Amino acid sequence: MKLTHIEHIGIAVKSLEVAIPFYEEMLGLKCYAVEEVADQKVKTAFFKIGQTKIELLESTDPEGPIGKFIEKKGEGIHHIAFATEEGVQKSLDELAGKGVQLIDKSPRKGAEGLNIAFLHPKSTVGVLTELCEEPGK
Amino acid sequence: MKLTHIEHIGIAVKSLEVAIPFYEEMLGLKCYAVEEVADQKVKTAFFKIGQTKIELLESTDPEGPIGKFIEKKGEGIHHIAFATEEGVQKSLDELAGKGVQLIDKSPRKGAEGLNIAFLHPKSTVGVLTELCEEPGK
Repeated sequence: MKLTHIEHIGIAVKSLEVAIPFYEEMLGLKCYAVEEVADQKVKTAFFKIGQTKIELLESTDPEGPIGKFIEKKGEGIHHIAFATEEGVQKSLDELAGKGVQLIDKSPRKGAEGLNIAFLHPKSTVGVLTELCEEPGK
Repeated sequence: MKLTHIEHIGIAVKSLEVAIPFYEEMLGLKCYAVEEVADQKVKTAFFKIGQTKIELLESTDPEGPIGKFIEKKGEGIHHIAFATEEGVQKSLDELAGKGVQLIDKSPRKGAEGLNIAFLHPKSTVGVLTELCEEPGK
């Protein structure tokens, strides 16, 4: 397993309209994209800081994963996504072989066109963990 | 406000003994330091990935901040720490002037000798946010 950096941190928020100004006006970061990911029932807003993106996630459906997360735990950090050098599928195969429980057994499309897959927090000491790669690498 | 990168991500765990092997054996990261921060009632373990450190936090006292966090929310991501180029005190002063609620009005010593300060999650859309700098900069 060769992880190179934290690609992004996903943060669950009730409202992008409230959250974006905090990151822009208080922390001085710039929101460079807002994108809806229908599959995940979220609207996302992206910021870049160093190697890492901050991905704010507003639920578009109370029954979606972010809606349920906020209902249970409140707003806050939802997941960490690591960039894997050897590709998502190979990393998943290695982890499955070591007994890690996977949410996605093969990569699917995430925001910004990345290939992504989630590991199950039961196997990752409580942190919802995502692996990702740029397509075509 | 000029934040350069995510210095570390703090993750609350029940047991370093359980959590360290996940990051080492499953994710292939290397634990390079274990340190007790008596002031915060935690034992910490550090990993580096790209520009960012992962700081695992095990509570040494159920009444400490990590003990209470785990009791309320379970294991998971506890805070994000941003490196500030202009220094923690200047950043705090700027944020206070903009109405952000602070936990620390001036920097104090954190793990690894960094100067650190926390903002209050009430002002940061639910994310416990830390600012930090290397001393002597």
